[in-house]
Amino acid sequence: MARLNHYSKADHAIDWQLDSVVHELRGAREQWRADHGRTNESGGRSLPSREIINEVVDAVIGAVFPMRLGPSNLRHHSEDYFVGYTLDAALNALLDQVLLELDHTAMRRGEAPEDHSDQAVAIVRDFGAMLPTIRHWLDIDIMAAYRGDPAARSVDEVLLCYPGITAIIYHRLAHQLYSTGAPLLARMVSEAAHSATGIDIHPGASIGSGFFIDHGTGVVIGETAIIGDRVRIYQAVTLGAKRFPADESGQLEKGHARHPIVENDVVIYAGATILGRVTIGHDSIIGGNVWLTRSVEPHSNVSQASLQKSPC
Amino acid sequence: MARLNHYSKADHAIDWQLDSVVHELRGAREQWRADHGRTNESGGRSLPSREIINEVVDAVIGAVFPMRLGPSNLRHHSEDYFVGYTLDAALNALLDQVLLELDHTAMRRGEAPEDHSDQAVAIVRDFGAMLPTIRHWLDIDIMAAYRGDPAARSVDEVLLCYPGITAIIYHRLAHQLYSTGAPLLARMVSEAAHSATGIDIHPGASIGSGFFIDHGTGVVIGETAIIGDRVRIYQAVTLGAKRFPADESGQLEKGHARHPIVENDVVIYAGATILGRVTIGHDSIIGGNVWLTRSVEPHSNVSQASLQKSPC
Amino acid sequence: MARLNHYSKADHAIDWQLDSVVHELRGAREQWRADHGRTNESGGRSLPSREIINEVVDAVIGAVFPMRLGPSNLRHHSEDYFVGYTLDAALNALLDQVLLELDHTAMRRGEAPEDHSDQAVAIVRDFGAMLPTIRHWLDIDIMAAYRGDPAARSVDEVLLCYPGITAIIYHRLAHQLYSTGAPLLARMVSEAAHSATGIDIHPGASIGSGFFIDHGTGVVIGETAIIGDRVRIYQAVTLGAKRFPADESGQLEKGHARHPIVENDVVIYAGATILGRVTIGHDSIIGGNVWLTRSVEPHSNVSQASLQKSPC
Amino acid sequence: MARLNHYSKADHAIDWQLDSVVHELRGAREQWRADHGRTNESGGRSLPSREIINEVVDAVIGAVFPMRLGPSNLRHHSEDYFVGYTLDAALNALLDQVLLELDHTAMRRGEAPEDHSDQAVAIVRDFGAMLPTIRHWLDIDIMAAYRGDPAARSVDEVLLCYPGITAIIYHRLAHQLYSTGAPLLARMVSEAAHSATGIDIHPGASIGSGFFIDHGTGVVIGETAIIGDRVRIYQAVTLGAKRFPADESGQLEKGHARHPIVENDVVIYAGATILGRVTIGHDSIIGGNVWLTRSVEPHSNVSQASLQKSPC
Amino acid sequence: MARLNHYSKADHAIDWQLDSVVHELRGAREQWRADHGRTNESGGRSLPSREIINEVVDAVIGAVFPMRLGPSNLRHHSEDYFVGYTLDAALNALLDQVLLELDHTAMRRGEAPEDHSDQAVAIVRDFGAMLPTIRHWLDIDIMAAYRGDPAARSVDEVLLCYPGITAIIYHRLAHQLYSTGAPLLARMVSEAAHSATGIDIHPGASIGSGFFIDHGTGVVIGETAIIGDRVRIYQAVTLGAKRFPADESGQLEKGHARHPIVENDVVIYAGATILGRVTIGHDSIIGGNVWLTRSVEPHSNVSQASLQKSPC
Amino acid sequence: MARLNHYSKADHAIDWQLDSVVHELRGAREQWRADHGRTNESGGRSLPSREIINEVVDAVIGAVFPMRLGPSNLRHHSEDYFVGYTLDAALNALLDQVLLELDHTAMRRGEAPEDHSDQAVAIVRDFGAMLPTIRHWLDIDIMAAYRGDPAARSVDEVLLCYPGITAIIYHRLAHQLYSTGAPLLARMVSEAAHSATGIDIHPGASIGSGFFIDHGTGVVIGETAIIGDRVRIYQAVTLGAKRFPADESGQLEKGHARHPIVENDVVIYAGATILGRVTIGHDSIIGGNVWLTRSVEPHSNVSQASLQKSPC
Repeated sequence: MARLNHYSKADHAIDWQLDSVVHELRGAREQWRADHGRTNESGGRSLPSREIINEVVDAVIGAVFPMRLGPSNLRHHSEDYFVGYTLDAALNALLDQVLLELDHTAMRRGEAPEDHSDQAVAIVRDFGAMLPTIRHWLDIDIMAAYRGDPAARSVDEVLLCYPGITAIIYHRLAHQLYSTGAPLLARMVSEAAHSATGIDIHPGASIGSGFFIDHGTGVVIGETAIIGDRVRIYQAVTLGAKRFPADESGQLEKGHARHPIVENDVVIYAGATILGRVTIGHDSIIGGNVWLTRSVEPHSNVSQASLQKSPC
Repeated sequence: MARLNHYSKADHAIDWQLDSVVHELRGAREQWRADHGRTNESGGRSLPSREIINEVVDAVIGAVFPMRLGPSNLRHHSEDYFVGYTLDAALNALLDQVLLELDHTAMRRGEAPEDHSDQAVAIVRDFGAMLPTIRHWLDIDIMAAYRGDPAARSVDEVLLCYPGITAIIYHRLAHQLYSTGAPLLARMVSEAAHSATGIDIHPGASIGSGFFIDHGTGVVIGETAIIGDRVRIYQAVTLGAKRFPADESGQLEKGHARHPIVENDVVIYAGATILGRVTIGHDSIIGGNVWLTRSVEPHSNVSQASLQKSPC
Repeated sequence: MARLNHYSKADHAIDWQLDSVVHELRGAREQWRADHGRTNESGGRSLPSREIINEVVDAVIGAVFPMRLGPSNLRHHSEDYFVGYTLDAALNALLDQVLLELDHTAMRRGEAPEDHSDQAVAIVRDFGAMLPTIRHWLDIDIMAAYRGDPAARSVDEVLLCYPGITAIIYHRLAHQLYSTGAPLLARMVSEAAHSATGIDIHPGASIGSGFFIDHGTGVVIGETAIIGDRVRIYQAVTLGAKRFPADESGQLEKGHARHPIVENDVVIYAGATILGRVTIGHDSIIGGNVWLTRSVEPHSNVSQASLQKSPC
Repeated sequence: MARLNHYSKADHAIDWQLDSVVHELRGAREQWRADHGRTNESGGRSLPSREIINEVVDAVIGAVFPMRLGPSNLRHHSEDYFVGYTLDAALNALLDQVLLELDHTAMRRGEAPEDHSDQAVAIVRDFGAMLPTIRHWLDIDIMAAYRGDPAARSVDEVLLCYPGITAIIYHRLAHQLYSTGAPLLARMVSEAAHSATGIDIHPGASIGSGFFIDHGTGVVIGETAIIGDRVRIYQAVTLGAKRFPADESGQLEKGHARHPIVENDVVIYAGATILGRVTIGHDSIIGGNVWLTRSVEPHSNVSQASLQKSPC
Repeated sequence: MARLNHYSKADHAIDWQLDSVVHELRGAREQWRADHGRTNESGGRSLPSREIINEVVDAVIGAVFPMRLGPSNLRHHSEDYFVGYTLDAALNALLDQVLLELDHTAMRRGEAPEDHSDQAVAIVRDFGAMLPTIRHWLDIDIMAAYRGDPAARSVDEVLLCYPGITAIIYHRLAHQLYSTGAPLLARMVSEAAHSATGIDIHPGASIGSGFFIDHGTGVVIGETAIIGDRVRIYQAVTLGAKRFPADESGQLEKGHARHPIVENDVVIYAGATILGRVTIGHDSIIGGNVWLTRSVEPHSNVSQASLQKSPC
Repeated sequence: MARLNHYSKADHAIDWQLDSVVHELRGAREQWRADHGRTNESGGRSLPSREIINEVVDAVIGAVFPMRLGPSNLRHHSEDYFVGYTLDAALNALLDQVLLELDHTAMRRGEAPEDHSDQAVAIVRDFGAMLPTIRHWLDIDIMAAYRGDPAARSVDEVLLCYPGITAIIYHRLAHQLYSTGAPLLARMVSEAAHSATGIDIHPGASIGSGFFIDHGTGVVIGETAIIGDRVRIYQAVTLGAKRFPADESGQLEKGHARHPIVENDVVIYAGATILGRVTIGHDSIIGGNVWLTRSVEPHSNVSQASLQKSPC
């Protein structure tokens, strides 16, 4: 609120009916809590904070690529010092957020309150321990982008500028959190990348090495998608689900495999839409704007033309 | 400019020909003002500030969802205090911005200068008074998102993570400003959401309750669109205008109804484009990538296939 | 890291195996440097900083449109003072970044170290000297947007709110850097606009006057595209390359002309995809969702329907 | 460290022998911990933070005088909202700091670790509950300053400008903490006032109502001093201890009453030094630069002249 | 409050009895307002803000000494631009504060509300117009300090490091405000210097050119003091008033001349105390710790010894 | 200037005669430069920055006492990482400032421009290398303070709260810079401590181990003072020079020894003034307010009384 603290021209006698608005907003909150069985929820914040998660991720990325995405005054002499200090602060802050998620999930499920510290520590320790591996994967992603784009001048330009690289950095961190029991934090990380790049990868998606998304705006990759190695994707590609089956009560069924499997060495051009649990065989090329709801063999070359021919 | 204040390596004797550049930029500004009849415009800022509008909206959203989107140290004990203080500061700051818009609009129209304070106060008071209602609508939107996405784990995840929810929060605030006489501020609010989410909803669009946009990047909803209750939309859907009719002087005609009407309980899948003042009847399903420029009956089920069949 | 400095709940005896993670991350960095022939790279930062570039561009934009995008307390009396001071600080900061790019490029190419100061000064001086011309072009772009959108109420709304205007402001600055020898900085500027607007214009693209992109999310314009005067483009339009030819070693060929030429007075509606070095003749209209990989005559009117008719 | 993050001219190959300096500093820390029996101290911060204490006190002062020392945009309509929200945040933050002090004190005394939460909550609750009383006292102090200084134009000028008022505001808050079991936090509060005003009041000093210090630089008031009502003091006055008695081992004896008692309605002019557990009787006047180590009767009028006369 | 926003360890169910504390604090405020006849005071802030005044003064000082106390990235080429922009922003901000003081003073005096804009503009315009003269005086003060201190290495060290220079810079600005009708703002400026330097000069004091205070902590110079040219003063010197005469009602008489006159070329050594409307004749030297309540002739040389001799 | 950026009530047509004020201020600067032979000074900042020096010192102090004065989230696990990273950043920033001082000094002396990099690197490297020794000395100072003050509860309270400890920390850093060739930076460090504590120690003063200043406001210790081990000093003590001898031209002679020598184990009580190159013999006690301008034997016990007796 600090920025709102300037002197206002408002006639200070103006009455915004504050008491009434405050009272009605309280009523709305109470109704919501009653509707969701949270009337016994007393106390403070029980959800992770977007702001803190963003800071943690920024710090971790700086520690993973210190000389390129870390602070501009860093030198080779102090790289390790920076990495160690930054990671410790980031992991400790992450621990608090993981605890908030675990407690919140238990509360939401109606479980008896218990101490989730051990589980939270394990999640954070695994996250830290995976960072060198993630860095290794990301180096391969960067090389894939450099090789896959004729406009790329250097691997450094790729790391600094390409939204597809930003998206995969965030995804590999988010997927680690997702896989070890912090799916809400994972989703918050994914959405930070989505907002910055227009690339929407669900943290549950499994993505192989050497993955490259060019341009990227409008890409959607669903929760249960499985992507092999050396896959290249262009803007506005969707790897989505078909219409969702509803159960008898009319509620959508949740959690089953419903997104495509894309095997190794596939290229999917801009605007292609692939829906459902289909398999795109390895070494296939899916053309721009193609609409595909069935599996294709390895080494297929699918284009709008080829699709339109078939029904005629 | 604070961040530029570091010591530069530049040889300080380098001359950027500042005087010349400053002089020419002044010339460009004077020409612009002459071209737009603003030569008598002396004085200070006459336009609202993007930065301040963003702060106002952040504060209002924090006040509407205090425990989830407000400051992380908030507790139930002090919710009302936080809401009251935050709203008062935000509404006072908003009042200044509304006044700037009203004065600017009058100046642009060549109206005689007058005091718009009463009108501005009314706009802001109405905005404040509508917040409980808006909160109620947003609770319904959140439930719709939770029910409509198989990947959603909890209503809290939806509120914290879903760009479609961010977009509808901003839209409902923007639409209130638009409807009561502050269309420029409304547009600034909308564009903040557009930048963060890739979802572009004109503040003039009328949207019913229980609205859900999934993924969302590339969605465009035009100024005169009318959307019913319980509508679900996916990424890259356009509810747009057809080519614009120009008047005799070649200028586009402004302001008439030119975007679709979408009735209750419609689902529109990703990439569908619906153009012009057509009506999508209630309980219809519009398939992915469909291109539609005519009305459809209630309970229709339109897909690319069905469309392509018809001309053959 | 300042925001992470709060007191954490973490049991302070928890051991994140920091020494091991730090050691392995160092190993990953060393391997990367060895793989890319950077083992003799000792010292400090050798790449421009995204953060500083963003500040430079913000400052320059404020200087180019001082009363509308500059600080909210600016007055006509002090416009020139603000412009002169701001530009001097911004150009000095830019000089450092240009030097970093020139040194880095030479290092990457294996050139002997030399002093690139004269070249850097020339790039920055040209950048400063072009600003009045760029301002003039942008005024024409703003008028084009105002005339092209029936929803636009004023030229000021266009400048403050339209993502297409934001994108073209950034592009004209980026293109100047690109053309004078700072392509990496240019790309960083472009990607800042891409992230904010969802509009991805490569800084190499050549764009004539009176250019307007409406809505804009998902637009992609490639490096060698050439766009004439008074062109209007809608969201999700791609001016891209066809599949890239690879050389004998399997590497993509870089740098040749591979994107469309769009002549004067063309309109391209939403979702159209134009690929390859084709020419769209002047005064043509390309309809929504059209997929086009061949040249069209001047005054053409291409729509999905017209395309689908031909193969039948 | 954020402000140090600018690009440095330093030749990045310069080696500061960091590893060696870091190693030796670690040695120094380990020796200190060994010398003070803290070798088993593993973990995180065990001391309160100056920065956080300063923020807590600023917030509390803003809540106690909201329209004059609170945020500049506050209005009468939202005073209570501001006060409630601010106090809740400040008291919660204070609670953490009190816990740190209690845990640290127990550790220093070699006590077994235990949970000090109940004690900490009691200290903070008492602190909050005393604020209205403290506000009342401070109003009397302000009136005393206004009446006591011919240069004072208004009570508001006194509150905004007088260092003596700043000092007594901090003291009354610090004394409350001191009296209820948080003497370290109390001292931190006192030293913040000392740094800002040059007035050094130990938080243990007991000070009656209507207290006024004019100018104030160099004033020292010791831990066991007792000051009555309506006392007025000028700059550089010391209410100190005489030379300290040492015990047999040569250590100074701690904690006994060793500073003056100043009864009601006494005035002490600039530079006067009063040492030891003496009593200045009510309604006395102590002249400038007087050096006094014995008690004086009520209604005394002591000046340098009168003192020098006596030994002669 | 931003810094208090971290996650607290507090059990969120703890009840600080907020409602009660808020209620009692409101009671205290209402009593104060009733006691001071401010019950009809409705609305917003009616007092200047310390924070804003400090920013204004910082900006003005940067504009007066741009290359030495302005931003570190300033260059000779852009000095005038910086000065013009900075002064315009600072003077506009100052205008708001002057208006607040004038309105508050009128309210306090029970005057009918009127528009003080013309008076405020005149005060600020005079303030701006005096800055070149003040800069000229300060240059002479700096030379006096350089010549008067054997430890001074350069005039730049004097400007950057000497608290006596800081004090006189603030004083000359404060005195201008005091003399033209903004005594409250003047006092706020003085107290900022007092806090930073320990030197307490009332803004009403009249001080000639070439004034130097060395070390300075504890110096007090009263409201009606008059100091000639080339006067040098050391730490802990007081130019104060004797005991104040009270009027019949027991209130101190305000406003009459009650502090010393110090003529040209006088030196006053550390700790000397001069009280009352006495005159120190030109070219006199007052020794350390001297206590003086009578006038002395020109060319006097007063020391403790000389004083003590006389009574013996 | 960021904080001045709010919307001002000022009528924007008010003309502050900016052009005239800017012009006259330029005239004043040019006259100053002409008077000081700096007409050929073209370019940028040639003086160190107070702001940056303060940041460097804060960072260094955090690195020297990481768990107590470093960031509040630091843990034992990451102490060394924090220390190494922080020191590297601080020393690099310091290097820039040392270079500015060396260049400025040479310019001021009219020396031919040369590269002072080697000298600057040596100064900074020595500074870094001395930090462990300085930490060791400071630990002894802290123990001396703890033992010397009956009110001290713990060594940690002493480090966190005592202004005398703050002053000696800053002094030991400043003295190192002073001794190795950066006296201007040293003075800037000293004055930062002076402003915060009211204790004015010239960086040239030589101070032994176990030094303790209690309360401290008003203490002045001159440039050539020499203080032994285990000396204890109270507030308002001056170790100063007598009146300065002027040379034939009337200029004060600079640089010779002119301040007291205080031998080991001396205690000097509050307000004592010792002037000139006198020696206070070891194990002496100098009483409060004593005025001393001659040497005293070891084991002396000097009080006001004893002094006054002697002349009588």
